[in-house]
Amino acid sequence: MKNYILQDENSVYFECGYSCDNLIFLNISGNKYFITDARYEIEAKLFAKDCEVVITNDLVKATRKILKKSKIKKLSFDPNDFKLFTFNSLKKNLNLKFIEKPHFSKLKRIIKTDEEIKLIKKAMSLGRNGFKRLSSYIQNDGLGKSEKYLFFKAKEFMSNVGELDLSFDPIVAINENSAKPHALPTDKVLKADDLLLVDAGVKYKRYCSDRTCTSSLNKKFDFKRTQKFKTKLEQKVYDIVLKAQQTAINKAKVGMKASQIDKLTRDVIEKAGYGKYFIHSTGHGVGLDIHEYPNINSRSDVIIENNMVFTIEPGIYLNKQFGVRIEDTVVMKNGRAEIL
Amino acid sequence: MKNYILQDENSVYFECGYSCDNLIFLNISGNKYFITDARYEIEAKLFAKDCEVVITNDLVKATRKILKKSKIKKLSFDPNDFKLFTFNSLKKNLNLKFIEKPHFSKLKRIIKTDEEIKLIKKAMSLGRNGFKRLSSYIQNDGLGKSEKYLFFKAKEFMSNVGELDLSFDPIVAINENSAKPHALPTDKVLKADDLLLVDAGVKYKRYCSDRTCTSSLNKKFDFKRTQKFKTKLEQKVYDIVLKAQQTAINKAKVGMKASQIDKLTRDVIEKAGYGKYFIHSTGHGVGLDIHEYPNINSRSDVIIENNMVFTIEPGIYLNKQFGVRIEDTVVMKNGRAEIL
Repeated sequence: MKNYILQDENSVYFECGYSCDNLIFLNISGNKYFITDARYEIEAKLFAKDCEVVITNDLVKATRKILKKSKIKKLSFDPNDFKLFTFNSLKKNLNLKFIEKPHFSKLKRIIKTDEEIKLIKKAMSLGRNGFKRLSSYIQNDGLGKSEKYLFFKAKEFMSNVGELDLSFDPIVAINENSAKPHALPTDKVLKADDLLLVDAGVKYKRYCSDRTCTSSLNKKFDFKRTQKFKTKLEQKVYDIVLKAQQTAINKAKVGMKASQIDKLTRDVIEKAGYGKYFIHSTGHGVGLDIHEYPNINSRSDVIIENNMVFTIEPGIYLNKQFGVRIEDTVVMKNGRAEIL
Repeated sequence: MKNYILQDENSVYFECGYSCDNLIFLNISGNKYFITDARYEIEAKLFAKDCEVVITNDLVKATRKILKKSKIKKLSFDPNDFKLFTFNSLKKNLNLKFIEKPHFSKLKRIIKTDEEIKLIKKAMSLGRNGFKRLSSYIQNDGLGKSEKYLFFKAKEFMSNVGELDLSFDPIVAINENSAKPHALPTDKVLKADDLLLVDAGVKYKRYCSDRTCTSSLNKKFDFKRTQKFKTKLEQKVYDIVLKAQQTAINKAKVGMKASQIDKLTRDVIEKAGYGKYFIHSTGHGVGLDIHEYPNINSRSDVIIENNMVFTIEPGIYLNKQFGVRIEDTVVMKNGRAEIL
């Protein structure tokens, strides 16, 4: 791909080490252009590596000018990256063929560099610190607090009072609300022996962490993997999900298809009779975006390679009762999965 | 406009009183379709007024099926509302003319109903409570805290610890950082006699509030309009901005062009010799979106009518020194502007 255009912030950051919320990025035979407005001039000129920084109050116009001057005939782009309005304005009357390359930036980023893995490892470590602060808080002051309040506290402790960006809005779900994989916080209040699911992550130098813990609100509350639940059903389901997750982490190998890793978790859950309650895929890649490639699902033929980073997060969701999900982010190293 | 399609959450909420983050909305000669996935089935069926709720795991396919069956020839849409990829998938091989109507939903929403005004008034009142909680905190504990920390605290107090959604991420800027109209929080620490700018809002039933206060960190810190700054220049600039803002609120009348209201603030600031430091427009409409119509700027010929709701927020920004912005949200009632 000789010539391409990007607008997505993380895709552009990956290209040049800088991005902002109003930009167009062009790569024309290796000549890179970072087109933005005056608010970002100083930072763009300092940080956008090997780019010609173009400052304008009309990004599309400035981009068209460069494209015209370049005389290129083909330009690759991702149709998920542009609004129709922007795209139509860009291409109008240009003698240029726009070639659709869906998700080409994410495809480029599927295998991480060692440097990127260090950053994700650091994000995971900062995320674990956040989980620890949150568990101390819940242990001491959590009872009687609503999901909405705990949701806010999760943001406070994960971000370390605003110091870190979050990878996404945390999920904080009690009992039956945890049966929804993407539960929103409600006014439901935390009580002794409740089941609590927390899914949260933070960013370090723009790289994301992602982790989910399901815990019991018993006397010694924590986010560890060993949990003792009040009801037998909760304990049974938890133990199945944990076994599924650990099996996949232990058996995942470079050279497998992503669908085979998905099957590692799914087989354990199906054998235990809960297959139809595992209603999502096993995992997803993690990097600059919280959802990257490879997708770890039953349809993915992607061959797993060293330096791929992805989540392993099986779950069982019993409608109107509770849900259990256990998630770690792993990197493939020396042929095997290592928890980051 | 007989037939139209929408995807934007607030636009769809306006049409039927419900929306979610994965949907397509169709209005075909008054027959409304709310197309979403199984996660939202229960809520959509309860709350999406007068809509046929269509549950699918392929929104585009389900939409195309309805469009084909309807045999309509024309469909209006907003090219800012669709990604190129979605649009291309939608229209592929359909015998249907897609008519571009940029911003048609926001244009529909430019004059608020009395019911909508009540909701915005309530949001403004909840927002003022947030400002009060924040000012007590700053008065007692603010000194020595960083912008980043105060930014987090602003979110905590504005949202009442997660109870309310925010209209946008607050702006919390000290001294020279306040010279940037869209300042991001830094590690800069709050000291006695500093100038502090806070721009923040909350939502009530999805309707936004918006307000900006510039204050001095003197002994009795508050967000009131009467402020006593340490330096003469700060006081002078503040008094000019306040005069500009109050002049516009007092003199704005139904029947004026939006540009004339912009001129009311701009004239005061220009006469005082600071015209070139007032680097943005006077205001913007507020409703379901934090930025709606009418735009209050020097180029807008929109005639101001009763029940329009917009901000009046002049500012003066002295690079590397400080900035002052004072903002209220007003509604036009009985021909005049009332602060909400």
